[in-house]
Amino acid sequence: MSKELVFGHLNPDTDAIVAAKALAYFESKMGKDVEAVALGNPNAETNFVLNHFSEPTPRVVKTVANEVDSVMLVDHNESQQSVADLDQVTISTVVDHHRIANFETAQPLFYRAEPVGCTSTILTKLFNENKIEIPAQLAGLMASAIISDTLLLKSPTTTDDDREALRELAEIADIDVDSYGIEMLKAGTDLSSKTELELVDGDAKSFEMNGKNVRIGQVNTVDLDDVFSRQDALVSTMEKENQTNSYDLFLLLATNILNSDSELLVVGEPKDIVEKAFNTKLSEDNRASLPGVVSRKKQVVPPLMDAFNA
Amino acid sequence: MSKELVFGHLNPDTDAIVAAKALAYFESKMGKDVEAVALGNPNAETNFVLNHFSEPTPRVVKTVANEVDSVMLVDHNESQQSVADLDQVTISTVVDHHRIANFETAQPLFYRAEPVGCTSTILTKLFNENKIEIPAQLAGLMASAIISDTLLLKSPTTTDDDREALRELAEIADIDVDSYGIEMLKAGTDLSSKTELELVDGDAKSFEMNGKNVRIGQVNTVDLDDVFSRQDALVSTMEKENQTNSYDLFLLLATNILNSDSELLVVGEPKDIVEKAFNTKLSEDNRASLPGVVSRKKQVVPPLMDAFNA
Repeated sequence: MSKELVFGHLNPDTDAIVAAKALAYFESKMGKDVEAVALGNPNAETNFVLNHFSEPTPRVVKTVANEVDSVMLVDHNESQQSVADLDQVTISTVVDHHRIANFETAQPLFYRAEPVGCTSTILTKLFNENKIEIPAQLAGLMASAIISDTLLLKSPTTTDDDREALRELAEIADIDVDSYGIEMLKAGTDLSSKTELELVDGDAKSFEMNGKNVRIGQVNTVDLDDVFSRQDALVSTMEKENQTNSYDLFLLLATNILNSDSELLVVGEPKDIVEKAFNTKLSEDNRASLPGVVSRKKQVVPPLMDAFNA
Repeated sequence: MSKELVFGHLNPDTDAIVAAKALAYFESKMGKDVEAVALGNPNAETNFVLNHFSEPTPRVVKTVANEVDSVMLVDHNESQQSVADLDQVTISTVVDHHRIANFETAQPLFYRAEPVGCTSTILTKLFNENKIEIPAQLAGLMASAIISDTLLLKSPTTTDDDREALRELAEIADIDVDSYGIEMLKAGTDLSSKTELELVDGDAKSFEMNGKNVRIGQVNTVDLDDVFSRQDALVSTMEKENQTNSYDLFLLLATNILNSDSELLVVGEPKDIVEKAFNTKLSEDNRASLPGVVSRKKQVVPPLMDAFNA
């Protein structure tokens, strides 16, 4: 049996890095030859998590077909969010919690998706179903991924399964969810050291919506001013990104993790569809308040998709 | 919570009908309001199975959006194999054992696919994982689906999971797998009463391959002469089907379930790609022997896809 690589999406967040490690551990226990890798360097939050649990940073790869014939995807399935040469390899396994789109295989495969807040929640169920013990260190990583994806269980994507998995993982890892969680989330919000490109694109994902190329970035903060004091520079970075990558529309969602509100910044066209999607008017500087919006997946992508397809 | 419909693919085979019933039972035990329906009338084999276990035939539907907002798919995911108005409803759940293609959702969903021989095998695992007992009658149906899809565990699609599930289900249903299985498979092979259209299209599925519209039918028999004594009429039916439905290529796989060999009949173009796919030369009457080939999914679709994309 030949080796397979396991990885999360481009611009990896904590769940993308952690779920790859968790699935690789699970599959190795099932007798597979696997290695968890990443499609980019960990962000500040993920570095905090890896350091906290003394876990090594995964190797970063740009292509995979030069190494393996077969891969496993976690926390994504859309090809534009994956490795560049995905079409050159067989996808044997997917564990994910997103919609399915721009995804096609020639062969049957393992595909496990659930509409829960975090891939690591599904992986916790996989470990339990197969009666494989989760080591304390890995449980700490997986708990961190759930805290990250659900903003400490406050995101509307949060389900009872996430709450139950986090409770179980926190017990194994022996962490206090609230105090550790706030510390971890804050570690991801030191924006002063980040370039404008890191802010707008560090967590960004691409979506094809009715023929338009839509880029959506999200940045978490404890003070929205930390983001919008740099608005002019952010806008010109987004304009440059649109040109360079043929994006039609770039949305940046700045989310205040303390009160769970977001502010949207829009660059590109069609802006009227953005206004329709969120039933709002953009300000003169192309911003809109989105109170209660924290989830790109659940509160931004679906209304935008609907507005594009209306 | 509003009602959902659960159904298998068009031209339903035993697994498509049975897996819908099994998932509907499972989801009802999880508290959901669901009804198993079918996208066509049961075939002779499935009628034998339903009669044998005194199970009612599911209601046949042509559209679903007039009844429900949300559906669950079993034993398929490709939209061209599903209900005509699938794009009008939300897909909440898929349980399947095929490749994923022509499938897209706007929202996260439950998706459970495994590369095993039969959807009912995956459903058996779902029942076990959730500690839900399978009633004897339903176990009989699910065992029949596994026997049907794996040709009594002889198809190369058969996995250890299928063998284990069939063993478990046969015990619950109290059937002798070999004697019941042969009787059931033979019930599906009385071809004399079938029209040519039923023979070529009764189990057919559509595939998009590199822009070509490919239709692939399969008929099981205990004597290939029962099929090919009617070759001229079959060919003109397939030609008519190609015209009416804009198929480019129609393949009919006639499979001898006693010795696990198949004979292929090809109507339409490109025939050279078919020859390349199976590394064979078509005879003057456009046939080819495919010894050891019994699985459309595993032994016909992938080599054809590869040849089309080469």
